Amino acid sequence: MWPDRRLCELFSIEHPIVQAPMAGSATPELASAVCNAGGMGSLGCQAMTPDAVRAAAGQMRAATNRPFNLNFFVHDAPQTDPATLALARARLQPWYDALGLGPVPTALPALAPGFDAERLALMLALRPAVVSFHFGVPDALAIAALKGAGILLISTATTVAEARALEAAGMDAIIAQGWEAGGHRGSHRVTGPDEGVGTFALVPQVVDAVRLPVIAAGGIGDGRGIAAAIALGAAGVQMGTAFLSCPEAATDAARRAMLRRANDTDTTVTDAFSGRVARAVRSPFAEEMDRAREPLPGFQQMYALTDPLLAAGRDDVASFHLYGQAAGLNRDLPAAGLLRLLVEETAVALARLSGGPASSARKLAP
Amino acid sequence: MWPDRRLCELFSIEHPIVQAPMAGSATPELASAVCNAGGMGSLGCQAMTPDAVRAAAGQMRAATNRPFNLNFFVHDAPQTDPATLALARARLQPWYDALGLGPVPTALPALAPGFDAERLALMLALRPAVVSFHFGVPDALAIAALKGAGILLISTATTVAEARALEAAGMDAIIAQGWEAGGHRGSHRVTGPDEGVGTFALVPQVVDAVRLPVIAAGGIGDGRGIAAAIALGAAGVQMGTAFLSCPEAATDAARRAMLRRANDTDTTVTDAFSGRVARAVRSPFAEEMDRAREPLPGFQQMYALTDPLLAAGRDDVASFHLYGQAAGLNRDLPAAGLLRLLVEETAVALARLSGGPASSARKLAP
Repeated sequence: MWPDRRLCELFSIEHPIVQAPMAGSATPELASAVCNAGGMGSLGCQAMTPDAVRAAAGQMRAATNRPFNLNFFVHDAPQTDPATLALARARLQPWYDALGLGPVPTALPALAPGFDAERLALMLALRPAVVSFHFGVPDALAIAALKGAGILLISTATTVAEARALEAAGMDAIIAQGWEAGGHRGSHRVTGPDEGVGTFALVPQVVDAVRLPVIAAGGIGDGRGIAAAIALGAAGVQMGTAFLSCPEAATDAARRAMLRRANDTDTTVTDAFSGRVARAVRSPFAEEMDRAREPLPGFQQMYALTDPLLAAGRDDVASFHLYGQAAGLNRDLPAAGLLRLLVEETAVALARLSGGPASSARKLAP
Repeated sequence: MWPDRRLCELFSIEHPIVQAPMAGSATPELASAVCNAGGMGSLGCQAMTPDAVRAAAGQMRAATNRPFNLNFFVHDAPQTDPATLALARARLQPWYDALGLGPVPTALPALAPGFDAERLALMLALRPAVVSFHFGVPDALAIAALKGAGILLISTATTVAEARALEAAGMDAIIAQGWEAGGHRGSHRVTGPDEGVGTFALVPQVVDAVRLPVIAAGGIGDGRGIAAAIALGAAGVQMGTAFLSCPEAATDAARRAMLRRANDTDTTVTDAFSGRVARAVRSPFAEEMDRAREPLPGFQQMYALTDPLLAAGRDDVASFHLYGQAAGLNRDLPAAGLLRLLVEETAVALARLSGGPASSARKLAP
């Protein structure tokens, strides 16, 4: 049924649907269920120890004999100058005070680069079928080593220029991530909260600019979205938010409840929590921080200042629940059932476009 | 060829493609050429005198016997308190100084509401087939009068909640305007520059929320985009930026040149020029104003302060060139040729989706 089979052939998968790696929310259970249902399951490994990655890969290999994708962030070791830290501490102190959290931490952790030598060696040892990157690509030597090991590589572009850079760097496919997407935007540089090209404009312009297969991401919530992405020239899609409601995802009960009542305007793009912009549910803290638009501590070092605020559990003050603008389309279904439904809905949408019965194009009942 | 013919039947048009009214850029020549080619031509009448609207309608009726659309803004008479004016003047003075423009004006014009009694009477006299609104809808009496005169009404929603409000108010169709769209965002309230739902997420959620036909807008640049909008459940599309390159549009030579080299990241959403957010080409003035996020004078009153800055012709300082994120897909073609090409491209995209030859889905040569 797929009019473009490039991703199916490249990845040896049945359906060109990639489950987004969603560090902290995707699980080996989720990824392997997606793989077994014919999609590409992914696991965000950035925050995991090498032992945990090894164990997760082993768990996935026990659960499926199909290819899967391990995901890493690509960035230099974050740095924060003392003046920026002092400014951020001063801005956060009133929020700490309001929640009785005491003084804002005075020190930030020293963090390694995102995709470092240890993670490279781990991937060369584990040899997953696919490794995907966020925030750019590692250096040419690392890319050559991974490709030499037969690993397929993909990375994210949020602009046409970034897509060209990914093609030049030797990626095998490109994720075109639009404004609608939940979670961290994969921009290759640190951007502001109002920068972002919508999926509708981004995908065809990336398709025209590169020869590689393009995986559309951002705002795709059901089979109508998959059919639309293919119409724009994408070879397939990456969907994250849709899988957050699956029982296999590490989504807590409060977030599942939020997803059930989610709407199109719940979220905003904010760098207030991690130091880089991500689409997350609105909260007064994020809105105040974004209004000020002052320099922030380095990516992920910022978590040392915001984690205590989030740990207070006061969503009415600060929350970092990451999901996209199409969360209102989510369904509570196990991953295999969701993937089956997405494929059926896509078939219905494609048939309708080709002059089949002029249905109202509404959602199928699950 | 159209799988959804609701707009064709509602408007008595051949192709469900609406040319956006684009006040100041659309012309009677452009609109009537689109009508004659089988689409819905539109003219933004907000800044025109009643005599000018009458003359334009007469010109269109001489050029085409097909239905056309006249567009108006809907907002209360703008108000600016003295403190806000003082703040805006202080912020603009350095920019005036840099360009040698003297003091920032001290007074703002008194402006009428957008769709006032005079404009209502004019529409009831002229009876265009369609009247469209931006920024909401007029009151129930005006709507009843227009509908009683046999005029079809459409308005713009930028969120699902706005779409529901438009349906409840009695509109005949709803434009779902995504983040990608050029020009003023049609939000029913004054919003910030980082608010906006992408077309990909907005359209299916609006389609699910209302019974009316939905016209997708924002980021649609060619037939791939039209096919994608239909896949998402839209009954048709509204395209503005694509028509700015037509010789019939009132686009000056400098802007035509910019459109020829446009890319996906040229634009930003800013309220710095008019007092309400619009997608326009980036400029240092807009970026500085948006960083500050301070209250601005009322909608369009703000032009009294920014027009002298724009009249200086220094695009490297301040420019208010309105276009969308898909401007990179523009083609220099007369309106009739563009509409024909869009229909052909849509047919190709639809055929490809239904298992036709697996083309690369790239643009047809014009």
